[in-house]
Amino acid sequence: MKSIGVAILGLGVVGGGTYKILTEHRDFYRRTQNVDISVESVLELNRQRALDLGVEESKISDNIAEVVSNPNVDIVVEVIGGVEPARTFVLAALHSGKTVVTSNKELFCKYWHELEKAAKRTNAGLYYEASCVGGVPIIRTLIDGMQANVVYRLTGIINGTTNYILTRMAREGLGYREALKEAQALGYAEKDPTADVEGYDAAYKLSILASLAFHTKVPLEKVYREGIADIAQQDISYGEELGYCLKLLAIGKNDGKGNIEVRVHPAFVHKDHPLASVSDSFNAVFLEGDSVGDIMLYGRGAGAAPTGSAIVSDVIYAATHSEAKYATFKNTQMAEKGVRFITDFKSRYYIRFTAKDRPGVLAKVAGIFAKYNISISDLIQKGEDIENIPIILITHETGECALRRAMEKIAQIEDVVEINSVIRVGG
Amino acid sequence: MKSIGVAILGLGVVGGGTYKILTEHRDFYRRTQNVDISVESVLELNRQRALDLGVEESKISDNIAEVVSNPNVDIVVEVIGGVEPARTFVLAALHSGKTVVTSNKELFCKYWHELEKAAKRTNAGLYYEASCVGGVPIIRTLIDGMQANVVYRLTGIINGTTNYILTRMAREGLGYREALKEAQALGYAEKDPTADVEGYDAAYKLSILASLAFHTKVPLEKVYREGIADIAQQDISYGEELGYCLKLLAIGKNDGKGNIEVRVHPAFVHKDHPLASVSDSFNAVFLEGDSVGDIMLYGRGAGAAPTGSAIVSDVIYAATHSEAKYATFKNTQMAEKGVRFITDFKSRYYIRFTAKDRPGVLAKVAGIFAKYNISISDLIQKGEDIENIPIILITHETGECALRRAMEKIAQIEDVVEINSVIRVGG
Repeated sequence: MKSIGVAILGLGVVGGGTYKILTEHRDFYRRTQNVDISVESVLELNRQRALDLGVEESKISDNIAEVVSNPNVDIVVEVIGGVEPARTFVLAALHSGKTVVTSNKELFCKYWHELEKAAKRTNAGLYYEASCVGGVPIIRTLIDGMQANVVYRLTGIINGTTNYILTRMAREGLGYREALKEAQALGYAEKDPTADVEGYDAAYKLSILASLAFHTKVPLEKVYREGIADIAQQDISYGEELGYCLKLLAIGKNDGKGNIEVRVHPAFVHKDHPLASVSDSFNAVFLEGDSVGDIMLYGRGAGAAPTGSAIVSDVIYAATHSEAKYATFKNTQMAEKGVRFITDFKSRYYIRFTAKDRPGVLAKVAGIFAKYNISISDLIQKGEDIENIPIILITHETGECALRRAMEKIAQIEDVVEINSVIRVGG
Repeated sequence: MKSIGVAILGLGVVGGGTYKILTEHRDFYRRTQNVDISVESVLELNRQRALDLGVEESKISDNIAEVVSNPNVDIVVEVIGGVEPARTFVLAALHSGKTVVTSNKELFCKYWHELEKAAKRTNAGLYYEASCVGGVPIIRTLIDGMQANVVYRLTGIINGTTNYILTRMAREGLGYREALKEAQALGYAEKDPTADVEGYDAAYKLSILASLAFHTKVPLEKVYREGIADIAQQDISYGEELGYCLKLLAIGKNDGKGNIEVRVHPAFVHKDHPLASVSDSFNAVFLEGDSVGDIMLYGRGAGAAPTGSAIVSDVIYAATHSEAKYATFKNTQMAEKGVRFITDFKSRYYIRFTAKDRPGVLAKVAGIFAKYNISISDLIQKGEDIENIPIILITHETGECALRRAMEKIAQIEDVVEINSVIRVGG
């Protein structure tokens, strides 16, 4: 039986989960995968944390050079997160010819080209299933399941923190601040929640997923990004009234002719769409292929055990396959020539504004929309306040630029007090 | 660039779909997969059908020996279906050292051990993603995504025909016969629908999926099977009243200690369960792993293009990997020693019976249930008819054997006119 030694860089939540899965399943993998996988080294400055997990003293190291030069180590698992020192450590491992398995979406989306170049030089493997959507095998599906298809569309709920917050806002009527606090108390959100709530985490993942789906590098800078921090409770309930759930969506579109659209922002999803029922910290990715049609993958997008499951699936794959496999596109820092990233994308829009309750306001608003060729599909006018009334409308599909120009004009109408929200509708 | 020649055995619906995908995407695969895949031979007795698809005359054959001895053919795609002549043809291909890609669930679940033995002898590849759940990459997920997990449970809607029929019965109030006729007219059901409506097709697939998920051969004979032909419209509407959808479920359970349960039968699924929203000819598989928790894969389970997509994903995988990969369990005709197949499985039950409207009937029924330690969670009694009334109840979880014995006793109560339906509840 083949023996494979693993080093784990960082025993945080995911590193600790990975260590537990590997050690507790060692016999199971010997039996079912015909390979003996042992953890031969861990890089962890907090020795006590490692000892508490049951790591032998002799296997704990604080020196990356020692870890990557260890002849018993074949595969290096990087679960430190962030760019540095993860990048330096991963490059050191690849330079030593060790296969790398990582869950680091930020590092991967920013330095994939550099890591892949280093991996190819020593013929080392480079695996990253755990970087996107935790335990859901979305990377493997894109590479080895959907590869027969031209993928036209990818729509995902790929950040668990924001989905938890939005679910709590919808179900319990909480405001954004309250829901965030609750998520932090439960460990679903970081103390500094910026990466999640501002959509950076989802944008990292979308950059990776869209690159694989569309067979060209989709640089992070090309991903349009908006977070959920400005979402008001009212918009969630008005949306519900109109038959929609609010989600932080990651959307990738490809027309097969070099036009690509990638964006992360809050969006209303119709209640009948399979993504509408993806709640709490669950994630899901919806894919549309030219042959397969629509498929969806659903599961836990984060957490020690689900992310550890994805890491270990890569470790086992690497341990049982001798051929390293790289990206199926020209992996450079920039997109290929000929690829155009669409910024004036088409969408439907939900708009909430406050107007003085005087005759003629709606006529003026409708006039401006008509001028920009924007038609209205739904409208709610609430007579709650005597002076100022909220008006909610949903447009038919229109261009982002036309809508922005129309909204500027509407804001200038004398009886329009305030534009409260503009939220896209649909994936 | 590597060149790979493919032969397709049978140009029926799936074979034709596969031919179209391969030829229309040839340039796309050259560009994205760095491999030139061409169809070098088709085995098809109906020459006109092949010519109509655009196959060159010289590549049409009616002789399997000619196809498998063709030096330009590396991969043989078998899409004939059924056991013979598919089995003989696949063995001929494997004996010649050709890699085989098949969508044939019946052949595969019955002769997997024999095919694998033949493949190993010549080091040929053997791929079968298309045998289960069409375009949904469930085989790849079990082998290369969930392999880090002990899989405890697999629950699937894995037959599109029956799901279409049950969806139409639920939405349009059709009876079984009407819905079947409609499915036949639309091409969703065969003229002889037995394999689908009696659950054979789902049982074939469950045998394959459970073998992979539980790492032991799960022989077809061990799969308990009931079809949907006896489902009455009333049960669907009573179920709805109680918050349930009726589905033909394939269920596999594994306690990790050698006890396995595999069954295909109609079952009520609670409306909040993700499987409840899988409608029409869509399929989905829900998996529970010890690390990853719950994941679900959803998509089209049949049809020329979705099944063709799965076949071509295997063709590309085989064309770009030199190592053949086989089952991760001892692939014999029987299950391993030590595996026990549970037949007295636990479930909740929906029961509908007709009773005379006389005092004391319910007390007698409740008494019998109590004797067998079965408790009731829901009850509906309808006073529609003066003489005979329908009584619908749902039990808490109980054993299959106890329930059957209790139902025998209940049938003997004088005022019980008829036991109409006994349907399991939950996955």
